[in-house]
Amino acid sequence: MTSTQPQRPRIGIGLVGHAFMGRAHSHAWRSVDAIFELPWQPVLSVLAGRDADRAGVAAARLGWGSAVGDWRLLLARDDVDLVDICTPGDSHAEIAIAALEAGKHVLCEKPLANTVAEAEAMAAAAERAARKGVRSMVGFSYRRVPALALARNLVAQGRIGTIRHVRAQYLQDWLADPHTPLSWRLDRQRAGSGALGDIGAHIIDATQFVTGETLTGVSAVLDTFVTERPLPDRPGSGPVTVDDAALFHGRLSGGGLASFEASRVAAGRKNALRLELNGTHGSLAFDLEAMNELWFHDHTERPETAGFRRILVTEPQHPYAGAWWPPGHGLGYDHTFTNQVADLVIAIAAGKDPEPTFAEGLAVQRVLAAVEASAADAGRWTAIGGVQP
Amino acid sequence: MTSTQPQRPRIGIGLVGHAFMGRAHSHAWRSVDAIFELPWQPVLSVLAGRDADRAGVAAARLGWGSAVGDWRLLLARDDVDLVDICTPGDSHAEIAIAALEAGKHVLCEKPLANTVAEAEAMAAAAERAARKGVRSMVGFSYRRVPALALARNLVAQGRIGTIRHVRAQYLQDWLADPHTPLSWRLDRQRAGSGALGDIGAHIIDATQFVTGETLTGVSAVLDTFVTERPLPDRPGSGPVTVDDAALFHGRLSGGGLASFEASRVAAGRKNALRLELNGTHGSLAFDLEAMNELWFHDHTERPETAGFRRILVTEPQHPYAGAWWPPGHGLGYDHTFTNQVADLVIAIAAGKDPEPTFAEGLAVQRVLAAVEASAADAGRWTAIGGVQP
Amino acid sequence: MTSTQPQRPRIGIGLVGHAFMGRAHSHAWRSVDAIFELPWQPVLSVLAGRDADRAGVAAARLGWGSAVGDWRLLLARDDVDLVDICTPGDSHAEIAIAALEAGKHVLCEKPLANTVAEAEAMAAAAERAARKGVRSMVGFSYRRVPALALARNLVAQGRIGTIRHVRAQYLQDWLADPHTPLSWRLDRQRAGSGALGDIGAHIIDATQFVTGETLTGVSAVLDTFVTERPLPDRPGSGPVTVDDAALFHGRLSGGGLASFEASRVAAGRKNALRLELNGTHGSLAFDLEAMNELWFHDHTERPETAGFRRILVTEPQHPYAGAWWPPGHGLGYDHTFTNQVADLVIAIAAGKDPEPTFAEGLAVQRVLAAVEASAADAGRWTAIGGVQP
Amino acid sequence: MTSTQPQRPRIGIGLVGHAFMGRAHSHAWRSVDAIFELPWQPVLSVLAGRDADRAGVAAARLGWGSAVGDWRLLLARDDVDLVDICTPGDSHAEIAIAALEAGKHVLCEKPLANTVAEAEAMAAAAERAARKGVRSMVGFSYRRVPALALARNLVAQGRIGTIRHVRAQYLQDWLADPHTPLSWRLDRQRAGSGALGDIGAHIIDATQFVTGETLTGVSAVLDTFVTERPLPDRPGSGPVTVDDAALFHGRLSGGGLASFEASRVAAGRKNALRLELNGTHGSLAFDLEAMNELWFHDHTERPETAGFRRILVTEPQHPYAGAWWPPGHGLGYDHTFTNQVADLVIAIAAGKDPEPTFAEGLAVQRVLAAVEASAADAGRWTAIGGVQP
Repeated sequence: MTSTQPQRPRIGIGLVGHAFMGRAHSHAWRSVDAIFELPWQPVLSVLAGRDADRAGVAAARLGWGSAVGDWRLLLARDDVDLVDICTPGDSHAEIAIAALEAGKHVLCEKPLANTVAEAEAMAAAAERAARKGVRSMVGFSYRRVPALALARNLVAQGRIGTIRHVRAQYLQDWLADPHTPLSWRLDRQRAGSGALGDIGAHIIDATQFVTGETLTGVSAVLDTFVTERPLPDRPGSGPVTVDDAALFHGRLSGGGLASFEASRVAAGRKNALRLELNGTHGSLAFDLEAMNELWFHDHTERPETAGFRRILVTEPQHPYAGAWWPPGHGLGYDHTFTNQVADLVIAIAAGKDPEPTFAEGLAVQRVLAAVEASAADAGRWTAIGGVQP
Repeated sequence: MTSTQPQRPRIGIGLVGHAFMGRAHSHAWRSVDAIFELPWQPVLSVLAGRDADRAGVAAARLGWGSAVGDWRLLLARDDVDLVDICTPGDSHAEIAIAALEAGKHVLCEKPLANTVAEAEAMAAAAERAARKGVRSMVGFSYRRVPALALARNLVAQGRIGTIRHVRAQYLQDWLADPHTPLSWRLDRQRAGSGALGDIGAHIIDATQFVTGETLTGVSAVLDTFVTERPLPDRPGSGPVTVDDAALFHGRLSGGGLASFEASRVAAGRKNALRLELNGTHGSLAFDLEAMNELWFHDHTERPETAGFRRILVTEPQHPYAGAWWPPGHGLGYDHTFTNQVADLVIAIAAGKDPEPTFAEGLAVQRVLAAVEASAADAGRWTAIGGVQP
Repeated sequence: MTSTQPQRPRIGIGLVGHAFMGRAHSHAWRSVDAIFELPWQPVLSVLAGRDADRAGVAAARLGWGSAVGDWRLLLARDDVDLVDICTPGDSHAEIAIAALEAGKHVLCEKPLANTVAEAEAMAAAAERAARKGVRSMVGFSYRRVPALALARNLVAQGRIGTIRHVRAQYLQDWLADPHTPLSWRLDRQRAGSGALGDIGAHIIDATQFVTGETLTGVSAVLDTFVTERPLPDRPGSGPVTVDDAALFHGRLSGGGLASFEASRVAAGRKNALRLELNGTHGSLAFDLEAMNELWFHDHTERPETAGFRRILVTEPQHPYAGAWWPPGHGLGYDHTFTNQVADLVIAIAAGKDPEPTFAEGLAVQRVLAAVEASAADAGRWTAIGGVQP
Repeated sequence: MTSTQPQRPRIGIGLVGHAFMGRAHSHAWRSVDAIFELPWQPVLSVLAGRDADRAGVAAARLGWGSAVGDWRLLLARDDVDLVDICTPGDSHAEIAIAALEAGKHVLCEKPLANTVAEAEAMAAAAERAARKGVRSMVGFSYRRVPALALARNLVAQGRIGTIRHVRAQYLQDWLADPHTPLSWRLDRQRAGSGALGDIGAHIIDATQFVTGETLTGVSAVLDTFVTERPLPDRPGSGPVTVDDAALFHGRLSGGGLASFEASRVAAGRKNALRLELNGTHGSLAFDLEAMNELWFHDHTERPETAGFRRILVTEPQHPYAGAWWPPGHGLGYDHTFTNQVADLVIAIAAGKDPEPTFAEGLAVQRVLAAVEASAADAGRWTAIGGVQP
């Protein structure tokens, strides 16, 4: 099987950005071909940054063949078949649309964009490109946590029946201390929103992914507990212009109720993306802080032995896990990115649209917009724009 | 110390009702004097039911000295100093007000009443009675779970600082199966409301108790997933006229945000009253399904060794625990009732108003009313009536 | 059904001892008739202590009808049908044998005795008495934890197949601090042994109870980490003459291996009686610090959804739980004693020998003796005396 | 800082073996320079296998520059400064000694060897080589789990005081089913031993690593529950000649007692390397199935708020974690290998002996031998050979 690998087609990758996300994506591209049996061989062709020198240093360290100082230079290169966008959200639309129009497949980090209008333009560009066989995907990487992928499978198999409740939280604590200084993430101009767009987007997508349903309306409140913080680099303080926390509940297309909470001031919760589903036949529960575990309650069991079971999602029978290590050997945060690019390459090679599509990224953006609208209107129920009844 | 017990004053108890709650209260009255060092000795004088014969049988079994077929007969008896009301909510106001006016102390099961108007009348009666030294208390027994009492103490000591978030859930699953038949609890005429008043009331009170704050406004949605259920006693089905689930978020008087969810269709969750608080200095988490544990995160610890710690609330230093068994020996559901009547007797003997007062029961009733009003108005933010700004 | 209660036969109880265990047994006797539907009605006739005055005070508080200053006075009383022995172990043999010979049923606290010889005499007396319909039981109360009773049932149903491993621990920490002073429990003359007999006995009995097998041999080590401790009442220190900890592994009659550890110096473990069983078809795990939970892994499930499930042992389908409160309402330490006396009264009324028998108590004693013998012989494998091959 | 990377010295790596361990080590070598700030740049020079063609295919996939069909070819190559040995244990001694004598640094997978004699020869060779600046390390990779490294640090800081107890288990279940077929791992000739050497070695090393103490004696039992298993490739069955499970307890050099259990038949336990330590000042607990968590009980805290705290070992203040991702983002199994080679390169560049040394690998081997000797002598206490009193 492996003996035919040298003859595999190659797919050249051009990465834009080399900060945290660029580093994580590089790790994935560098590893994926050694872990998964891929139909095409990814080649780490070129890394684009805003500064060619710094990009060059990063490229050497992260394993890229070359470096450039402007992402536009990727579009004409023959050794770039796919553009992977790891820049801040305000540049996603421009880069992604240009790349798709240049015939490059695109992987774009979440959130798809900073506004619904940009996201709509991107989704339209993706749809046009797909007709020509050019593929696009938005990087909601938590879909590739084996436990969440298993959760989706169990829902799809009907193991929890009709969904009555979703309880979704994403809790962090890096702003719990009022003395934590300002940063660009707390500036609405640059970051779009606060906890809502940054981590709230993840639980919206995870909910829609696992349930296979969409949100149809929400009722929300946003708050900023600490409205002024110290400046990072000099005496004095400045205003926080984004939300510290977002709470909302919503209705799923299947009739269930969902509650959401995103916060950066939940002391002691480091990266607690928690998801619980209750259905007529069973329930599921997950916490990213214990990412190799999925809890499943089968409500059709006889009561004597029913209970939430802790499934260690590390077995060959589980999504992704079989490609990695023997049973019982857990994965970490970065493995989700490797799983993600494996799925992406496999879909492209098969001539299929990878998921989540830009349309799915747009759907998340519309929920975010409805949350902001509801919060601005005293919590009044607000329908999700663009959702078909 | 115990040698003076024979000389202690006695306090005669008259109990009204001998169903589930009457049984639990009887257990408490029967046990409390052997567990706690009480200033007054409770005497189980008389049990009142709607049928004298059945009350007689119950009295014999549950340890009461005599039985009567009408609660009104308690009011004139010299051997009744305190009336303990364990009847359904629609009779609370009449019994409690009559007892207070007859000079009897009153312990009234939660919810205080079925309507705000009744609760207001009861709170007014309690206030009048208190001026004459006649005491009253509403039976939010979970305040006497040692772990929740400890939580309140830690909040009061400032261990979690300013509260940013409360996450309160009360999840049960006895209606998860759509084939579960109708009962009076699903009839709005008789039960007042569904999950909201039955279990939602508990998490509202627990939140206000532990935080020491009050809710100032809410945004809510109520839902009934199964609107028709089989009749319990003959073929056919009938309508469900109460909520299966209530979701709402609210604002605390100290500025924090709180989310609430009460559901009877959360498959696999049997009695999951969960409370989590996040403050500027720390966090607390509790789940009634593991009622002897309180989780505490001290955010002032150095990061190397910070984390949520599982406090086994069974030590002599913890509320109530020292009166029971040696360290590490956990309590169960019914112990909360014993702890409750111990506190009640101690307060009465000391000439103090026990807590929670009827005014606190009224405060819960007002939140319930605001939740219903908000849910009926598309989730719009609704201020809690009667709360002082 | 309850209307026939007044006509039920009565069974008069005489309790010996009113310290911690006497208090716990009193609580059970006082409660049992209100919780369980018993064929006979227990009557709390008389409490015996070493001092009539102090026994009188205790009797008043704990609910006993009268008090005496010598246990021998119980033997001739008509209102005593059953003698419940809650004294230290060195007096068990004398009291139990005398009571059985006087035709009184006996409930004797664990450990059955301080020596194998005493235990043998007691077992022989019990066997003689049983021929005359006089019953006896040793108070290994943890058999009445619903979760452990369920564990036994699941093993008996074959749900875990052939047992390969038992992992039994009983960890406490009240001697972790070397400055904790001496007490009679640390004096071999009075206490017999240390952690081994006090808490090790519990895990031996629990293992034999849940597995339905017996231990056939052991290899052991005992240790006393702090050999000198402060005197409790005056300056200076004195020797500790019992073990702080006992470690041993053994062989079960069905071929499995079992490891045991009993310690009073396990810092942070308050009352951690933990039991884990691994069999060919599944596994079970329990921890007394979370006594309402049993963890069950069904190894015959398909791997995709297999995992240890947390069974909340509070449902009507579970042992004992149905007699108490609604689903999801957990029990505590003292409920095991109430369950125990319910089983005892039911067995006596049915003319059956209750369990655990004195013979089972003797079996535990023989394991304890083998542990001490092995530890004294450099850990050499030591067969359990009296076990049939 | 990174701008000087091009000028860093290079260290050429030659890997021997490309099965499971070779794959894991390749992943580590491929990633380490992008994650850690290393003084020297590792270069994946050459992969050696037993078959040059298959090694060539593996090299292409795993990222190695070239491939050879005989490990001996590595010894003369200038582009190999370090030989990484990922072959079965019976070849370790020959390869490692030859490599060290050729002046190559060596990383050798655990167990160091199949016999004490081989391990002694290797340790002697390592000591000779060290005098010339040639370094060696044995691959007990779990030392590089951040939680276990933190545990060691806390012990070294005195946070748990004098160690009284260690409870070490390594439980797997791939042989729980008696129908699982034979493999070379069940053949004593090839595998040396069963659960004992494979996974028991890990808990021995982890215990000695975390405590900073050595085992001085043991008392043991070994067992093979299924002595005959189906042949993997044809009808019929054959004998199992290694242990399924090993149980032993031992004494630590500091006076504490330790219990050990290694099993491959613990149904439902997939990779449960569990370690618990109890000391005079506190306790620690770890389970590899939740590898990003360390539980710490501080026994010097006041009892009101003491409890085992769950430290999420993902913060910048924790070992290794800061080099990876932001707070709260957990690591997986393979990250331990990356951490391991980072430490190795840093030590070599600094002219220091990396740990664990071959002498430490030999110490584990001696414990394994003592366990076998004790088990063969009815569990009699057996001193660890070569340990200084």
